Amino acid sequence: MRYSYLGPPGTFTEAALLQMPGAETAQRLPTGSVLSALTMVEDDDADAAVVPIENSVEGGVTATLDAVSVAHHLHITAEALVPITFVLVSAEPRPLETVRSIATHSHGWAQVRRWAEATVPHAEFVPASSTAAAAHGLQQDPSVADAAICAPLVAQQLGLHVLASEIEDVTGAVTRFVRAAKPGPVPEMTGADKTTVMIPLPEDHPGGLMEILEHFATNGVNMCRIESRPTGFGMGDYYFSVDLEGHIGEERIADALAGVHRISPKIRFLGSYPRADEKPQQVGPEVSEAAFSAAHAWITALRGNIR
Amino acid sequence: MRYSYLGPPGTFTEAALLQMPGAETAQRLPTGSVLSALTMVEDDDADAAVVPIENSVEGGVTATLDAVSVAHHLHITAEALVPITFVLVSAEPRPLETVRSIATHSHGWAQVRRWAEATVPHAEFVPASSTAAAAHGLQQDPSVADAAICAPLVAQQLGLHVLASEIEDVTGAVTRFVRAAKPGPVPEMTGADKTTVMIPLPEDHPGGLMEILEHFATNGVNMCRIESRPTGFGMGDYYFSVDLEGHIGEERIADALAGVHRISPKIRFLGSYPRADEKPQQVGPEVSEAAFSAAHAWITALRGNIR
Amino acid sequence: MRYSYLGPPGTFTEAALLQMPGAETAQRLPTGSVLSALTMVEDDDADAAVVPIENSVEGGVTATLDAVSVAHHLHITAEALVPITFVLVSAEPRPLETVRSIATHSHGWAQVRRWAEATVPHAEFVPASSTAAAAHGLQQDPSVADAAICAPLVAQQLGLHVLASEIEDVTGAVTRFVRAAKPGPVPEMTGADKTTVMIPLPEDHPGGLMEILEHFATNGVNMCRIESRPTGFGMGDYYFSVDLEGHIGEERIADALAGVHRISPKIRFLGSYPRADEKPQQVGPEVSEAAFSAAHAWITALRGNIR
Amino acid sequence: MRYSYLGPPGTFTEAALLQMPGAETAQRLPTGSVLSALTMVEDDDADAAVVPIENSVEGGVTATLDAVSVAHHLHITAEALVPITFVLVSAEPRPLETVRSIATHSHGWAQVRRWAEATVPHAEFVPASSTAAAAHGLQQDPSVADAAICAPLVAQQLGLHVLASEIEDVTGAVTRFVRAAKPGPVPEMTGADKTTVMIPLPEDHPGGLMEILEHFATNGVNMCRIESRPTGFGMGDYYFSVDLEGHIGEERIADALAGVHRISPKIRFLGSYPRADEKPQQVGPEVSEAAFSAAHAWITALRGNIR
Repeated sequence: MRYSYLGPPGTFTEAALLQMPGAETAQRLPTGSVLSALTMVEDDDADAAVVPIENSVEGGVTATLDAVSVAHHLHITAEALVPITFVLVSAEPRPLETVRSIATHSHGWAQVRRWAEATVPHAEFVPASSTAAAAHGLQQDPSVADAAICAPLVAQQLGLHVLASEIEDVTGAVTRFVRAAKPGPVPEMTGADKTTVMIPLPEDHPGGLMEILEHFATNGVNMCRIESRPTGFGMGDYYFSVDLEGHIGEERIADALAGVHRISPKIRFLGSYPRADEKPQQVGPEVSEAAFSAAHAWITALRGNIR
Repeated sequence: MRYSYLGPPGTFTEAALLQMPGAETAQRLPTGSVLSALTMVEDDDADAAVVPIENSVEGGVTATLDAVSVAHHLHITAEALVPITFVLVSAEPRPLETVRSIATHSHGWAQVRRWAEATVPHAEFVPASSTAAAAHGLQQDPSVADAAICAPLVAQQLGLHVLASEIEDVTGAVTRFVRAAKPGPVPEMTGADKTTVMIPLPEDHPGGLMEILEHFATNGVNMCRIESRPTGFGMGDYYFSVDLEGHIGEERIADALAGVHRISPKIRFLGSYPRADEKPQQVGPEVSEAAFSAAHAWITALRGNIR
Repeated sequence: MRYSYLGPPGTFTEAALLQMPGAETAQRLPTGSVLSALTMVEDDDADAAVVPIENSVEGGVTATLDAVSVAHHLHITAEALVPITFVLVSAEPRPLETVRSIATHSHGWAQVRRWAEATVPHAEFVPASSTAAAAHGLQQDPSVADAAICAPLVAQQLGLHVLASEIEDVTGAVTRFVRAAKPGPVPEMTGADKTTVMIPLPEDHPGGLMEILEHFATNGVNMCRIESRPTGFGMGDYYFSVDLEGHIGEERIADALAGVHRISPKIRFLGSYPRADEKPQQVGPEVSEAAFSAAHAWITALRGNIR
Repeated sequence: MRYSYLGPPGTFTEAALLQMPGAETAQRLPTGSVLSALTMVEDDDADAAVVPIENSVEGGVTATLDAVSVAHHLHITAEALVPITFVLVSAEPRPLETVRSIATHSHGWAQVRRWAEATVPHAEFVPASSTAAAAHGLQQDPSVADAAICAPLVAQQLGLHVLASEIEDVTGAVTRFVRAAKPGPVPEMTGADKTTVMIPLPEDHPGGLMEILEHFATNGVNMCRIESRPTGFGMGDYYFSVDLEGHIGEERIADALAGVHRISPKIRFLGSYPRADEKPQQVGPEVSEAAFSAAHAWITALRGNIR
């Protein structure tokens, strides 16, 4: 198994990758961008890619995944959640007050700014291309900075000295990552699943989204994420990127998506896969498999009588 | 073929019956009430009943039809529209100004009151049990009244003399009638059909009807009639009596009703039948049979890949 | 106070009238039809009319009320519920088995048919123009029938002998009546109110009713009755006759009706009045008067800042 | 006037800033992150900030703006659209085939990868902290790279030599930027406006978003952007970040937002401001100012009659 991922080694993305089954023994191939990681899969240079799906310190963007999925038919087969927490590290142990320069990515620096002002007020910020690169830099070129701010994983991998941990200004942040692969078997239903779809909307009228959501509502289907995006690049027509609670194997998901397909036949199915939080699906009696079966049997009997 | 109908002979209901195929040669059995006409069908004393479905001069009530349909499983197999127009008749020709008493049903009198005040101001109203009975009365007992107000059909059947016609205060009224029979073959689709259903609603909450209508809306199904009624007789829970534009043989009707069945499994199908006005069904592209087929094929293919 | 009502004396309608405040001492003016009762009000021959609003044994029809309300601007100012129960009466005491003929209205006969077949199988049905007229007939012309089936009120008023009571085949039926008067003060809010409106719908399209109901749904307004009807008489365009739970004095009712007015500016307000069943209004927190006030204050503050 | 913006000088963000009225003569203060630019406004070190609102090559994130808006009450007062196009530049003129190393931001590199592979296949990618930094680097330290890929603005500002232009793999991309300032006067209505709000949703149930959208639908309010996001950082409850077509000064926007306020009283208004594309607002007759006025007058008259 070969995994491409948004590198360099030691990122939060690699931490997400390590949650995937068999990841410890898999080949892990870092890349310079989300796009590169996905391209490796389409080019058969990797079997799957792990990339951030929501905005994060490392900048992963759903839009990229969407674009590649459409162009190259990638599907999502798993997701992972990684707590976003930072450490201040140095190559050798040293007192905090001696730290005069700190390398990290500008997004990372923004997330620890208040801590830094309070704790290491005289330290200068040295921009790096990623938080992991900043950590690697401490060993490669000690003259660049006295310390780095990075993810715990890279500190551990490189054997760096942790001067301070959990230094993020806002605690509790979690970023979501997905595994993307070429279309193949859809993971089986677990009872705690998500389904991701892209729904283009030809026209931009007040009721457009409502018409789509009514198909979800009448089938008791909850969305756990929705984002509108411009399609192509004219800022004109747009599509919705949506995560649904449930699995395409369920009648209620199948019925809702069939209804949306009638409105927007270019809808793209990007995968059904287990939820990282394993929260079991609640299904009301009117959208249970039994309710669908009973309704189907009733209609079939009625239609059997047509002259 | 034996037809029961709301009599006596010469009513608007008989006029509706005469619109049914083969009615001329059928046995026509007048009854004293809508309930009696329907009961004859359930007792196998008639093959079908013709009764008014909307409020009319003769008082037919949907509620009665609903009650009998549920208790005895009658289905609707046809509908007819009859213009409601009245004539003033007498047994022998006579000048209008000599008419001092006019027999008719109180509902009929109410519908010609302004004409009567203007044209025969000195004539007294003599109540009769129906407009047709008033007409028959002129021949049976000339002492009851000088003239009668009734439907054109009975005047023609009895050879009465028409003193004035189209005397109704509001012109253009039309009443709808249906043919009810024991469940059997559903009339085939014509492209201009109606479907009648009864939908019980267990709870009386703000969104209850909305949830039902959303299934119609998402399937492009139009209602041409809706009436809420108390179920049973506690004035508490209620049901909706609904006419839909379309035929159970259409995917969009079947899909909508299957959805409503999940919410309200005691829904009753009362029939799919040709529209009396023969207005062809308009169907949007997103609810065409082709759209349903394409959606179904897409979902089936997706589900074929589940591990 | 002068009340017109659907007569003759002793009907269920008079029983409803007697529930109105001050009815005992008011002048009670029976009429031959719902239309006549309403016309007396518009002609200033009565101060208010009491008429059945739902289909009943005596045939009152909402459509008539609607028509008159629109043409002559009558409003509803009260409602009453009357249990529908029948008695078999005779002029003098006599054994049940000696009853060979029974006078009543055909609708009344239909409602006791099973009881009659089981209890007085040899009795012949003699049609009368109303159940009350049948009762009066026993005293006026004893040759017409041995007994009559009528409402308890008329039996009591005429001092007739009750041979059997509660003889209706279906027990528990209740009919609703309303008091209609010329527009004047709207009855004050009681916390258990109804509001009646007529909503014309210019076009007959799948989403038409939905658009109206969304205004009710977003304001937490429940309907306790809805009926679609053809407007005028071409069976084409139609309107909805609707009862809402609540009073025009409430923000949620006012906001919902204002929204409907934008879609259908010919909407007619027919009155806000206390519910006969006195069931108190339940109002969710998001549609409470406090929620409306807070929202209004927020918007006003925001708009105060516009340059 | 002092503008902070996501720097360094020469970015697409500065290009957006230059579209603001009076920008040419304003003080332009580059910062290292979106967060820093916004913080300068809250600290009164700048009068307004210009930041990317959608994902772009420079990584601006709506989430950051949302967070700061809530914490520090910033409002949006303008938006700008900037075409995303890249140039390949060098310090001195040189043939393309001599370019062996190219500095740029990794996101920028991803967007020109196909062009680079086809045109300068032997050139090595040298990561920089931003595309503008790469351009500046050519003058500051010629040893880092032979060329840089950057926005046209910075090439022009630094007098660099353009070796190739419009080299992006996907043409036509446009990024949206906003101007954020402390709450003050809301820009006046132009007839082509947007309103941005944040709507927290306490519970994650199937109908939650529908309930909000119904307020938009009943008021004819179109959304041009919607994104769901986790609130705080437990990945649990979430909010919607929404752009509406229209201005808070319009009745339809005010009415819709008042309705949403009742469901979600913690809704945040982030501003009404002119659309960058100047597309005039289309308003249906049922949500025109006249329709709102007429509805309001009708309700006020009705309520004036309450006893």
